[in-house]
Amino acid sequence: MDNIKKLAHIFGATIRQMRSEVGLSQEEFAIRCHLHRTYIGSIERGEKNVTLETASKIAKALDINLSLIISRMETEYENYGDENDNH
Amino acid sequence: MDNIKKLAHIFGATIRQMRSEVGLSQEEFAIRCHLHRTYIGSIERGEKNVTLETASKIAKALDINLSLIISRMETEYENYGDENDNH
Repeated sequence: MDNIKKLAHIFGATIRQMRSEVGLSQEEFAIRCHLHRTYIGSIERGEKNVTLETASKIAKALDINLSLIISRMETEYENYGDENDNH
Repeated sequence: MDNIKKLAHIFGATIRQMRSEVGLSQEEFAIRCHLHRTYIGSIERGEKNVTLETASKIAKALDINLSLIISRMETEYENYGDENDNH
């Protein structure tokens, strides 16, 4: 997996996890984000390379700073590398 | 100015500031980012709504975590609101 796909994948996985932690369904979350449910689904599956604007909407819907999501993503990203790659 | 333009504007201003702090010209910075100089210029002027992927390339070129750029941007964003808006 190249770095770009990895980034989208980890961002999506982080968002899915954080959404679950606050007990929101994908549909409820989509409404809060002002985004379509299928779009949220594709973000969570790591299929979208989101813009800062979209990432910011997501952060707002989760009621936290975007920097905290990115920070958590970076931690996951490091671990992800260890578990799935040989480098 | 709406929130989207504001975000791009503050991101660009933050990047320009951080690039200057490490003493890189726009051209040197563009090479490090693997992006075109004119594209960096438009990002710094707040004309682009960058993707997380591009933001990540920029962070790598500055040799810091993206979360730190975003965190700094969020601080600037708050101040910016105070200086330029009435709300």
